[in-house]
Amino acid sequence: MRPGEGGLAVLAMGGNAILKAGQEARDDVQIGNLQEAFRMTLPLLDRYPRMIITHGNGPQVGNILLRNELCQADVPPMPLDVCVAESQGQIAYLALQAWDRACRAAGREVPMVPIITRTVVSADDPAFREPAKPIGPYYTKERAAALIRDKGWVFQEDLRRGGMRRVVPSPDVVKVAKEEHLRALAESLVPPFAVLCGGGGGVPVVQGGAGFTGVEAVVDKDLASARLAKVLHADILIMVTDVEAVYLDFTSDRPRPLRKVTAEELSRHAAEGQFPPGSMGPKVEAATRFVKATGRKAVITSADRLMDALEGKAGTTVE
Amino acid sequence: MRPGEGGLAVLAMGGNAILKAGQEARDDVQIGNLQEAFRMTLPLLDRYPRMIITHGNGPQVGNILLRNELCQADVPPMPLDVCVAESQGQIAYLALQAWDRACRAAGREVPMVPIITRTVVSADDPAFREPAKPIGPYYTKERAAALIRDKGWVFQEDLRRGGMRRVVPSPDVVKVAKEEHLRALAESLVPPFAVLCGGGGGVPVVQGGAGFTGVEAVVDKDLASARLAKVLHADILIMVTDVEAVYLDFTSDRPRPLRKVTAEELSRHAAEGQFPPGSMGPKVEAATRFVKATGRKAVITSADRLMDALEGKAGTTVE
Repeated sequence: MRPGEGGLAVLAMGGNAILKAGQEARDDVQIGNLQEAFRMTLPLLDRYPRMIITHGNGPQVGNILLRNELCQADVPPMPLDVCVAESQGQIAYLALQAWDRACRAAGREVPMVPIITRTVVSADDPAFREPAKPIGPYYTKERAAALIRDKGWVFQEDLRRGGMRRVVPSPDVVKVAKEEHLRALAESLVPPFAVLCGGGGGVPVVQGGAGFTGVEAVVDKDLASARLAKVLHADILIMVTDVEAVYLDFTSDRPRPLRKVTAEELSRHAAEGQFPPGSMGPKVEAATRFVKATGRKAVITSADRLMDALEGKAGTTVE
Repeated sequence: MRPGEGGLAVLAMGGNAILKAGQEARDDVQIGNLQEAFRMTLPLLDRYPRMIITHGNGPQVGNILLRNELCQADVPPMPLDVCVAESQGQIAYLALQAWDRACRAAGREVPMVPIITRTVVSADDPAFREPAKPIGPYYTKERAAALIRDKGWVFQEDLRRGGMRRVVPSPDVVKVAKEEHLRALAESLVPPFAVLCGGGGGVPVVQGGAGFTGVEAVVDKDLASARLAKVLHADILIMVTDVEAVYLDFTSDRPRPLRKVTAEELSRHAAEGQFPPGSMGPKVEAATRFVKATGRKAVITSADRLMDALEGKAGTTVE
């Protein structure tokens, strides 16, 4: 194949592709999970030989932030944007190890290029006035009070788990920083290839006169992936998560999977409050944004049903 | 320009391009240092529009390791190879911020592609039997004894600063993992561009039947850079450090700079013990390896004299 030839897919991997609920965040555990996720997604290359893979980073950046916080008397702590960058480095390395093993087991030789990327948000985003995304460890009320006083952090009480949790702004995606450079990269490489980027939604920055400046926030990885998919002229946006499809009445005793749905219908369901903000909500929003902007299709499914979903036999297809 | 056209330089930046002695490892301090280092090295693009930039990571990985160690009761610690990957992510992000600002100030628009990379070492390397590279914080003798018992770490007493310091193996570079993929990347992109990679010498891995496995070691960034320069068919290997040139009798009252030297002469000086193992030694070794293997040239100088050094007016040129 020649550069730019062949379909391009943006594949957004949910956090459970890296670490599953209840697992300890050890490196070997995460490599194992990633290898299994890649095993199931490698066949995608036959249809889309240019793969852009994004991923979540919740538990990883949570642990990095926790270490920064616990050791701040001994080691100067890094702000959240730098912690996100560290989690990108960590996961990129674990993903490289897993990718090589999955490729070798499948008899494929496909380069993975893992890139550190930033996502531009607006300093005027209302999310900065109302931080709502929980991040990092649980604190006692006393410790939280001290951190509110000393650092201006914002906390929410988590009644279910009994503790205070820091909440940070999750502003909307304006664009990917230097996204034209990423597009040039995707158009330069000879397929098949995978580019790993947009980890954790990308390191959040705001754009000013002198350049980009990091901000203490987190970006939703699905919204960042939708932007990437649009900018890279992707043929498809795929989000793999821990459920097989988007469901209506998900928490009722009769959940109904959506198989084929237009972006307009899906937006209508979202407006009716069908999808919770923290989980399926952003995926639905990402899918509708991409499909409305490009007329192309988006798929939401689980990694093990991915190839079936592409043939309309599983998952939710938005077009 | 078209892909593959124009000179290719591998530029290895010493640790002081990121953090200078006595500075606190804050993010803004490091961005400022990197911006200044990039300001001085950007003119290199006129001669070598394909720039591969590598860098050290000593203080950064030291802090990440220290946080892992201090919090191990609360957060499962990551092994050293993962810490190196995190430091690559951190520095790549800070470098991106600095690169954009330096480019903007210089009226240039040059993409920087920051990539997480691994370096292959041999499990049989004698360095694994005799760890010698100090890393991370200073410990009391009691704490060190506990870590020797619990983790099998190896310590050296640092008489100058009064404390025990962990030493890790610094095995030689066998190759860069998937180096053929990096070469394909460097040959695909349209110049001018910079690829940032090989941070901290690369994440150390050993190669086995199933793929690569991380090891608790650190790789010398200059030796890794020499390998990269050879594999990428670089026209020149440049190492910028905190001294302007390589000196003979450096610690005497009459140090003599080497201006133009053959690889053979330089090897002879090295064999005579002219260059200390921790600092100029690896640079000299990297320069001689690259020049002997390729017949091309290597330059060792400080960032502020770089352009003069290319014209033979400063620095040390090995050819």
